[in-house]
Amino acid sequence: MLASEALVPVSNGFPASALSPPRSQPTLAYDERGKPLTDAELPSLSAGKASCLMRSGQMTAQRYILSLLSHINQRDGHIQAWVFLDAKGAINQAKTLDELAPEQRGPLHGVPVGIKDIIAVKGMPTRYGSTIHDDDGPALADAAIVSILRSTGAIILGKTATTEFAATSRGGSCRNPRDLSRTPGGSSSGSAAAVADGHVPIAVGTQTGGSMIRPGSFTGTFALKPTWGALSTEGVGRFSISCDTLGFYTRNMDDLSLLSQIVRISPGSRNIPPPLRPSSCRVALIRSPMWPKAGPGTRGAWEQADRVLQQAGATVVHVELPNVFNRCYDWRETIVSSEARAAFLPRYLQAKEQLHSSIRKYVESKEYPSGEAVCEAYDCIGQLRNRWDKIAGEFDFVLTPSVPDEAPVGLEWTGSSAFCTLWTILHAPALNVPGLVGDSGLPIGLTVTGPRSADRSILEAGKFVGELFEDLQPAP
Amino acid sequence: MLASEALVPVSNGFPASALSPPRSQPTLAYDERGKPLTDAELPSLSAGKASCLMRSGQMTAQRYILSLLSHINQRDGHIQAWVFLDAKGAINQAKTLDELAPEQRGPLHGVPVGIKDIIAVKGMPTRYGSTIHDDDGPALADAAIVSILRSTGAIILGKTATTEFAATSRGGSCRNPRDLSRTPGGSSSGSAAAVADGHVPIAVGTQTGGSMIRPGSFTGTFALKPTWGALSTEGVGRFSISCDTLGFYTRNMDDLSLLSQIVRISPGSRNIPPPLRPSSCRVALIRSPMWPKAGPGTRGAWEQADRVLQQAGATVVHVELPNVFNRCYDWRETIVSSEARAAFLPRYLQAKEQLHSSIRKYVESKEYPSGEAVCEAYDCIGQLRNRWDKIAGEFDFVLTPSVPDEAPVGLEWTGSSAFCTLWTILHAPALNVPGLVGDSGLPIGLTVTGPRSADRSILEAGKFVGELFEDLQPAP
Repeated sequence: MLASEALVPVSNGFPASALSPPRSQPTLAYDERGKPLTDAELPSLSAGKASCLMRSGQMTAQRYILSLLSHINQRDGHIQAWVFLDAKGAINQAKTLDELAPEQRGPLHGVPVGIKDIIAVKGMPTRYGSTIHDDDGPALADAAIVSILRSTGAIILGKTATTEFAATSRGGSCRNPRDLSRTPGGSSSGSAAAVADGHVPIAVGTQTGGSMIRPGSFTGTFALKPTWGALSTEGVGRFSISCDTLGFYTRNMDDLSLLSQIVRISPGSRNIPPPLRPSSCRVALIRSPMWPKAGPGTRGAWEQADRVLQQAGATVVHVELPNVFNRCYDWRETIVSSEARAAFLPRYLQAKEQLHSSIRKYVESKEYPSGEAVCEAYDCIGQLRNRWDKIAGEFDFVLTPSVPDEAPVGLEWTGSSAFCTLWTILHAPALNVPGLVGDSGLPIGLTVTGPRSADRSILEAGKFVGELFEDLQPAP
Repeated sequence: MLASEALVPVSNGFPASALSPPRSQPTLAYDERGKPLTDAELPSLSAGKASCLMRSGQMTAQRYILSLLSHINQRDGHIQAWVFLDAKGAINQAKTLDELAPEQRGPLHGVPVGIKDIIAVKGMPTRYGSTIHDDDGPALADAAIVSILRSTGAIILGKTATTEFAATSRGGSCRNPRDLSRTPGGSSSGSAAAVADGHVPIAVGTQTGGSMIRPGSFTGTFALKPTWGALSTEGVGRFSISCDTLGFYTRNMDDLSLLSQIVRISPGSRNIPPPLRPSSCRVALIRSPMWPKAGPGTRGAWEQADRVLQQAGATVVHVELPNVFNRCYDWRETIVSSEARAAFLPRYLQAKEQLHSSIRKYVESKEYPSGEAVCEAYDCIGQLRNRWDKIAGEFDFVLTPSVPDEAPVGLEWTGSSAFCTLWTILHAPALNVPGLVGDSGLPIGLTVTGPRSADRSILEAGKFVGELFEDLQPAP
């Protein structure tokens, strides 16, 4: 119903004058069949393709950003992926980038990026999905990840919607582009929605439980949560220091590979894996202790994945985790509640009445775990990380569910992170691969994972799995 | 020689007009013998005593801050503990605090605090001891720890000197108040020096290797580095996420105990320990694998401590750590170099020519540890943390050296952190207790430590040890 309504124009800082009349420019960019790309086609370009066209002078950064801004202007009234959009600044940056000599152009030259609004961007406010920071001025410095992206020529376009401090599952007004009546998932709601809807080819999010993978699955995007510690979280709002991990959304695997090289996710990574050869490939399918929560969508996707992997010639092994992994969930809860207490104490003292009850509870709880219990949880999880590396290291990659099912109807609840938390606390890299669908025709992703620091291997695997899933789709 | 030179007035933002002529106010505050406190005596007050006088209306916050500012004005020309001082803002805050009704006054009502300049303070610049951030504007928000302190009535007076990103041992211009020809230690140089010299009763620093304990020992201050994770490092410059820990400097144990309650260091801590009874107290003396580095000052202090503990009736056990602890140093190096690479990549890409070669090396190093080596280091250290808790848990507390000897002569090198790194990577709480002296009559501290999360116990132990050391001093 909502989809049929007229889309409301974005009002948050978007200068309509910048788009009207559209700049007339010679069309130099071509698609793969040699046809000139129209402005309407630009929002579906990958970051790699777009930056290649811009680096080589076939497309100006201004043309690209204006086409994306026009697309956002048409779409974001109902998606509401953006909480702050610096259209004017982006156009100015594009102008500057267009003046750079070709040899000065970086790997993300002219590529606009969305940043989850718990991450500092110089000159933009950080609201954390909370009213506490309503009156704060713009940040004085970029978060580490933003600084890296900017140094490669990326244009930081704006801030994307998040749940409160990325720590609740209470949805905001951001909608799922695949079905506006449904949540895009959380807490990285706006980053996933913006990429899924073609607003930007890349967005940055974070995961403490399932905040990258879940929105990735719900919106049908690729989502990478690298090994914990691979990216500095300096300048990112804190929730749980042992779990908070930065990640990326893209619409294809090549962009994720490009990004992981740019941000140097794994300089000392396990040996660079050769491309996966399906016939000699060994895959572990791990349903995980959360399997009883899987609905028909995920169960169907699971069987389909099993089948196509086998058809491709892969050796598929169904692996059950040792029982001790069942205890991970409690240990994780202990660690997160202890670390969240430290993280939220300042804001609690500052304005507790403005915090969601679930956040207040971290500070107020009388059943606070003892110091011994917290240390025990750290140590037991530490041992399981090592054990996990050994289990996963026996295979080329591991496949496991991303979510219980398609995105739930409604915006109030951002969905369950049940299938994601294990890999987060184990510090393992996790990658949502979209391509399968549930009963309502909406996306169901599956997660490719592996041992810690095997990020390059899981990117290779993601490419392989992504192509298999793509072949399942009916031809357009 | 330098000590005899005329002290240069502070020029960084200090409004001379605010102090001259001094405000005349009725003197209501009294010392323990019932004598009115003179302005000159106020800089030696503890935070607890000062806030008590201000909460009860016996002293105004304005009188207190003006006396400290006057003291700083006389002293900081040569100490150079401060890189930014907001005297005007502090006086305004004091005025506001003086107008609060008694029941609105917090536990640190009117107490000025110094903040290491890698920690964000709203309205003040953050320079990180580097030229990279010279042009940054003032921070828009407080770091977590600053926000907590402010909420209890503390006045954030300014930013204190740090080595570059708290990650090098190259000294700056900050001097040791005990001997101006010597380093105050690093990287929390200014925080330790400011407290030692009576500029403020409390300062905040950080430790990744030995950056709290070492300056504590060199300047003769109490320095607490709590269990890792007890305090949120949101808003603090990143070096090594597994090691970076916030801490406090004070001139007495009571202030440290007060602070640890205020910031809720251990809400789920091991049971609140009863006051230590010397006759039934069991103490482990651990020289640690670094003992060969101990010079005559530390060796003398060590024997003295052993003797006075035994004289007090304590059971002193000399404990040698199992050999596997020798490997901690290499594992720590692997972890820190991996995490520092992620931390410094953004600034490297931004302005590598402005980074110290030791910081550049983290990013450039070709001998970068493999992902497997980093994971192995995490796991082995994780197991040793558990083993350490068991070893230390057999005793009421552990005593171990803080530093090799007195503060080295010269400002170029901030000294060795050899004796501190083990407890940092083990996440154990560590507390420098001053009171002993070396061959040149300068302070030698010893470290009280214990199992993770035993912060309350080591605070109790610090009080006990501190009193024993105090009794050794010749009567004034």
